[in-house]
Amino acid sequence: MAIQLQDIGKAVLETEYAVRGRIVARAQELERQGREIIYCNIGNPQALEQRPLTYLRQVLALCQYPDLIDRGADLFPPDVRETARRVLEGTRYGLGAYSDSTGVRFVREAVAAFIRERDGIEADADAIYLTDGASKGVQAALRILISGPHDGIMIPIPQYPLYSATITLYEGKQVGYYLDEGHAWKLSLSMLEESLQEARRYGVRVKAICVLNPGNPTGSVLDRDNIRMLIQFAKSHDLAILADEVYQENIYLKGDRFVSFAKVMVESGEAGVSLFSFHSCSKGYLGECGQRGGYMEVRNIPPDVVAQITKLQSVSLCANLTGQVATYCMVRPPRPGEPSYARFVEERDRILGELRARAALLAEGLNRVPGIQCNVVAGAMYAFPRIALPAGRSDEQYCLDLLEQTGICVVPGSGFGQIPGTAHFRTTILPPTRQIEAVVERLAAFHASYR
Amino acid sequence: MAIQLQDIGKAVLETEYAVRGRIVARAQELERQGREIIYCNIGNPQALEQRPLTYLRQVLALCQYPDLIDRGADLFPPDVRETARRVLEGTRYGLGAYSDSTGVRFVREAVAAFIRERDGIEADADAIYLTDGASKGVQAALRILISGPHDGIMIPIPQYPLYSATITLYEGKQVGYYLDEGHAWKLSLSMLEESLQEARRYGVRVKAICVLNPGNPTGSVLDRDNIRMLIQFAKSHDLAILADEVYQENIYLKGDRFVSFAKVMVESGEAGVSLFSFHSCSKGYLGECGQRGGYMEVRNIPPDVVAQITKLQSVSLCANLTGQVATYCMVRPPRPGEPSYARFVEERDRILGELRARAALLAEGLNRVPGIQCNVVAGAMYAFPRIALPAGRSDEQYCLDLLEQTGICVVPGSGFGQIPGTAHFRTTILPPTRQIEAVVERLAAFHASYR
Repeated sequence: MAIQLQDIGKAVLETEYAVRGRIVARAQELERQGREIIYCNIGNPQALEQRPLTYLRQVLALCQYPDLIDRGADLFPPDVRETARRVLEGTRYGLGAYSDSTGVRFVREAVAAFIRERDGIEADADAIYLTDGASKGVQAALRILISGPHDGIMIPIPQYPLYSATITLYEGKQVGYYLDEGHAWKLSLSMLEESLQEARRYGVRVKAICVLNPGNPTGSVLDRDNIRMLIQFAKSHDLAILADEVYQENIYLKGDRFVSFAKVMVESGEAGVSLFSFHSCSKGYLGECGQRGGYMEVRNIPPDVVAQITKLQSVSLCANLTGQVATYCMVRPPRPGEPSYARFVEERDRILGELRARAALLAEGLNRVPGIQCNVVAGAMYAFPRIALPAGRSDEQYCLDLLEQTGICVVPGSGFGQIPGTAHFRTTILPPTRQIEAVVERLAAFHASYR
Repeated sequence: MAIQLQDIGKAVLETEYAVRGRIVARAQELERQGREIIYCNIGNPQALEQRPLTYLRQVLALCQYPDLIDRGADLFPPDVRETARRVLEGTRYGLGAYSDSTGVRFVREAVAAFIRERDGIEADADAIYLTDGASKGVQAALRILISGPHDGIMIPIPQYPLYSATITLYEGKQVGYYLDEGHAWKLSLSMLEESLQEARRYGVRVKAICVLNPGNPTGSVLDRDNIRMLIQFAKSHDLAILADEVYQENIYLKGDRFVSFAKVMVESGEAGVSLFSFHSCSKGYLGECGQRGGYMEVRNIPPDVVAQITKLQSVSLCANLTGQVATYCMVRPPRPGEPSYARFVEERDRILGELRARAALLAEGLNRVPGIQCNVVAGAMYAFPRIALPAGRSDEQYCLDLLEQTGICVVPGSGFGQIPGTAHFRTTILPPTRQIEAVVERLAAFHASYR
């Protein structure tokens, strides 16, 4: 037969992923016609002039072509060559063989060591899954958690649409909880309780709560008290936690620091709440989106359930080995005293410094535009400003018009969720500084004329 | 909560993937205890001493670390440096940025050119999806096809368990059709008709048929008449076709050649049957399993359905860029007159020659063992011999005992499907020649003692 649209399942049809939806398609069309487009729709740093870290790329080049370790000896620092040798030995067969379904053990051990060092807690290499980016880890966790159409997953509003898309595709129920825009998008216990109780009234069996820290699209950063409150909430209502921590290196305000859910959970002696944590090579200072590297760590999950997760991973064989090695380099960067250390620190700090400057520049610039209001971007890579719209206009229409008139491609708030009656858009903070200024100027002019 | 096994959905629990199941877990356990294990369970050539192609790895190294294109000029042939430049320009942002959800257009165009040249037919870059290995393409196609629990997908018996696992996970119905072991595992129209009619009697809405050519685990190769018959069958019963053609370079018998479903379909003017075709960097002479590169080509699928496929791909952002570039190198290898050509041909032909020799050696060796019967291995990377077992013994027990006594790890026929009352196992033909001989000897001794 020739398949027709009516043959497609409801879950597939209803799945939506705004970050790459209609507006982006239109932007690409305009670009093919010769228009200059500034892509602020997606956190894709290297498409916006961010340079890869030399150390990481040198290690990957040597692992791809091991002859270079000796033949190109004068082109690579000794610690890079040493690392490549160690990685190749750790993978046993190099980058061209399938690894274990959970990923190369050597890399998983390095991830466990990273967690131990970061958090001062125990970590187990057998509780680590190496994944093609964090997205695949999130999908694996949701696949295990959603067992039928009455199962609900709490997601923040606004949220990153990977969550809503995957829950829809797996035929579970989205249970939204609002973040408090008036208080820097913070979590509020009363809003959590309210949304949970409402879902239960409708017969939804709520099984887990997803938290993004730092937040996407909100840019907020949770402190230890927020996290403790959330763990208590999960415990008292029998929920698992999905902690999306892919922006853990992207924290911009003095005094803020990243605190992991795993750390707070272990320190408070909580062993009754299942936790899935996610990290990625795509964000932070690496920005290696195309390598598709990342990991999921699981805690407080019984072995027979872990075996089910591993079984599902095995159907797709394994995550790509280059991404696995990129993950190794992320969790085991050069150390003081090693030849690559100085260059690594310089590159890392330059990238993070630029992101910090752009986060401030963008939020401040947006707040100068009458009719646009933007919280401080404390973390991650996005601003999610609120916009005042003329009656009858949607934020989707606003973003389309913005694109047509200015070439700036952003994503409407409706793709992330927002309080009914409000309108927002998400923009990345990633364009180079000179472009950020142009973005703000063009936005201001557009917004003034739009009202 | 701490998740419990009873919280997990039925579809997840019922999903099975024998190639990495219980026996492999036991093999790894034995290996950790110091036993030498010969892994014949999975088509993972580079874990069994196959060397990667120099050309491919050189291009990947330069793409990872573009500084080398100039700085390492004396270490790389000029055409490799030229290819790396072309690829980097084609990707626009190198390997570290997300590409389009369907993959880098430059690579998709190269894939379309490859299909045009291979088959002498038209091909469209916009009908190509670059995927993390072929597995992800197969899953994408099945996700689109299975819309509810009454939807059935025809799969061969024996089949590669990616198909059965994915159909179970997506809650569709497996509709098995037997391959004819007595006739070199060929397709038989009457067996196809019979299994289709039986499924329909049970109320199953059969939507597609999966064909593996060359066959996994059977090693059979379809000719043009088989393929034409299958397309007619699909047409007359309103089925889509999934053509798994990942072993298209692995054809060993004189006179046999690979014929694609796309070619036969276009040549017979058939535009009413939807076709999904799959190819991969993991097999053939590349054997680059760890790179996770591959593609899916779709034909006779209306644009609104294609848009649904693209939307689902976008939720996971894109396939890994290294795998995409590996796919480029697969479809656009060095050409006569280019500096890398001679070495490429020598490496390719050596690998294919060795595989051909091992395929013959293994099948002949197995056939010399009383109680084991093996068809000719005409293609792919496996033998699927039939074994006579003592009453009351299963092939799973046989494979476990074989592993314990000899260190040889193979997969029981029950993981692939077989006619009730028969028993088989699947072994790869990949071990180096000296090991193949040892495998056959140990198997013969084990089998004699087992009866």
